[in-house]
Amino acid sequence: MAVNWTVPSADQLWPVAGVRLGVAEAHVRKPNRKDLTVMLLDEGAAVGGVFTRNRYCAAPVQVCREHLAAGMGVRALVINTGCANAGTGEQGLVDAHTVCIALAQKLDLAPQQILPFSTGVIMEPLPVPRILAGLPAALADAAPDGAHWLRAAEGIMTTDTVPKAASRRILIEGVPVTVTGIAKGAGMIRPNMATMLGFVATDAPLAPGLIDALARRAADGSFNRITVDGDTSTNDSFVVMATGRAPLARIELLDSPAGQALLAAVTEVARTLAHAIVRDGEGATKFITVRVEGGRDADECLRVAYAVAHSPLVKTAFYASDPNLGRILAAVGYAGIDDLDQGRIELYLDDVHVVTRGGRHPAYREEDGQRVMRQSEITVRVDLGRGAVAETVWTCDLSHDYVSINADYRS
Amino acid sequence: MAVNWTVPSADQLWPVAGVRLGVAEAHVRKPNRKDLTVMLLDEGAAVGGVFTRNRYCAAPVQVCREHLAAGMGVRALVINTGCANAGTGEQGLVDAHTVCIALAQKLDLAPQQILPFSTGVIMEPLPVPRILAGLPAALADAAPDGAHWLRAAEGIMTTDTVPKAASRRILIEGVPVTVTGIAKGAGMIRPNMATMLGFVATDAPLAPGLIDALARRAADGSFNRITVDGDTSTNDSFVVMATGRAPLARIELLDSPAGQALLAAVTEVARTLAHAIVRDGEGATKFITVRVEGGRDADECLRVAYAVAHSPLVKTAFYASDPNLGRILAAVGYAGIDDLDQGRIELYLDDVHVVTRGGRHPAYREEDGQRVMRQSEITVRVDLGRGAVAETVWTCDLSHDYVSINADYRS
Repeated sequence: MAVNWTVPSADQLWPVAGVRLGVAEAHVRKPNRKDLTVMLLDEGAAVGGVFTRNRYCAAPVQVCREHLAAGMGVRALVINTGCANAGTGEQGLVDAHTVCIALAQKLDLAPQQILPFSTGVIMEPLPVPRILAGLPAALADAAPDGAHWLRAAEGIMTTDTVPKAASRRILIEGVPVTVTGIAKGAGMIRPNMATMLGFVATDAPLAPGLIDALARRAADGSFNRITVDGDTSTNDSFVVMATGRAPLARIELLDSPAGQALLAAVTEVARTLAHAIVRDGEGATKFITVRVEGGRDADECLRVAYAVAHSPLVKTAFYASDPNLGRILAAVGYAGIDDLDQGRIELYLDDVHVVTRGGRHPAYREEDGQRVMRQSEITVRVDLGRGAVAETVWTCDLSHDYVSINADYRS
Repeated sequence: MAVNWTVPSADQLWPVAGVRLGVAEAHVRKPNRKDLTVMLLDEGAAVGGVFTRNRYCAAPVQVCREHLAAGMGVRALVINTGCANAGTGEQGLVDAHTVCIALAQKLDLAPQQILPFSTGVIMEPLPVPRILAGLPAALADAAPDGAHWLRAAEGIMTTDTVPKAASRRILIEGVPVTVTGIAKGAGMIRPNMATMLGFVATDAPLAPGLIDALARRAADGSFNRITVDGDTSTNDSFVVMATGRAPLARIELLDSPAGQALLAAVTEVARTLAHAIVRDGEGATKFITVRVEGGRDADECLRVAYAVAHSPLVKTAFYASDPNLGRILAAVGYAGIDDLDQGRIELYLDDVHVVTRGGRHPAYREEDGQRVMRQSEITVRVDLGRGAVAETVWTCDLSHDYVSINADYRS
């Protein structure tokens, strides 16, 4: 039950020319669920990605990096749930390569033109035969329409309770350009340079070399600013695909008006998906925006924002609708800014001014804090009083259901 | 219900010559509970402390630092529960000073000879009149025996479910030397250079200047190696008092045989108390030792150990007795060691070798992992394969009761 998230209907998802999606039930871990997804790209698409910075990265992440570096032109993505193929050593790499080779043979491509993705339980071997057996059905299912984007969003779910898809159509120089994406994730969410799994496609034509910067900048405004439990996954991957099929002059610079328009649209889709992950965070009952202002640099703003967003005490207070705001001050204090002057801290809960000069605001009334804490969407705003930089992070509360979900998952 | 912790009886706690303790009900926050404690020291005691590194430190912590720096000889400690006097701005400092002045007047001392401590809810004003009204009863109660050490351990409890006290008597150069201490804490526990509140006294005679080093080194082997929820408190304080009353030649060096014997005894008492805090961690059902070996330096070992000890996914897996060990590998991977080679990681659960060279050990069987995970005490051992340094951290699991306790506390 995601917080204030409405699953889009198939007819709200614009197809992206040059992209087809297919889904199958491969029984990777459990029967009767869509757990194998392929995304097929027409020749000529630009593909870039950002991946987990977890040093214990999964085998498919390592293979993705290799295949993108090979520069042969990505033509297909293959995604399984149920098994992360992480913590699987050499055998995991062999398994990921085997899947790519099998799919490449069916599509008459080189294996380096395939990107593999896995999500699910860590440290279990990938059931390669089941995946290979499922590929024909997934390929046979492939189609470009919104219904298939939605099926793919369902096909990549694990502990997610809702599929996550978003789509925008904008005009660039009078030409309609589409951006459509899907993502999955609910737990082990503290993306570091990428999300669990996010895939965004556009038909905009891009100059070679721009796609990686587009992916990175979109991630920094979306997936790289969310956290559910502070656990950076081994499999985080965010991929942006540009098929170039829109009848538009090629975008040569991201900082041009056309480039900025595209970046804004891709970031908006990515942010909607990233927010959907937080809204569907394991056990989440509230969507929390943590904005830290008045910092000297982005790094210290993010350190404070994540300290607040990760504090189990802050998160349980949100769950309880308890304006126990001292817990927020404590988190600000231990965020690691050595020369922080507590006498300059200001704290707001939505419109309510709670703390001024490091102490309780004289006009603050408990009932005002209580009113905001009861809402399903809350903005915490901290002003450090040290500079002019601000950063925003999105998170959710910590509830009984988080413990239930993670104590029961896998068992 | 603390994990495998037996509260010592009064006759298991050795008195420390030169120390008396008194407790009263001051109604700081709730009626009918012991919430005000005084510790009185004879003239000549050496007192040193380590305090929270939370930049949002509480008013009493600031006053403690001032008063210790004044060097006038500490003669009394006054501790209240129910209110942390943190996030209280200038008024909080005035309040902490007011309590010191009042107690100093009653004892005919200078205010700088008093150390104040507060623990409880953050951002509420300290109810000074109630504390002042409670002081005479606390002073009247003061006595040196083990029963009063136990009363004091009860007097400083907040969400603790059990009092925490420990005592050792050792022989140094044939002379009996006593070390007795108390501590409190169950949540907001991730001491950074100190614990919530810990007080250890010894009758050993110490050369001036040794007491701070003794406190620091004992803390680094105890309170500075535990975590419940990763939330560093605003009020962490650990104080070591040496009354010098044992008929022993003055200890001039901590690295002498006598100094080492004393350090070992003080560390052992402090570690027993620190472990008691983890065993009584909010909602804890298991006591977890995380040992990281094969690191290049202590810092990287501690980073990995805390990443494992703080991961909500790892902690819920312990709660569920689920050997979902990939979650441990993921935490090792995101701990921030940029050049970590995942192919060198070894992982053990007690005696069970789970991961070798970064992948599942071929001989590992799920039922062996399951057997260890069902225990109430578990050691996770990670070998990084990078060097010869090791560090150990102690923590507990994350259960439904943690959420209940912190969603209900204060409300």
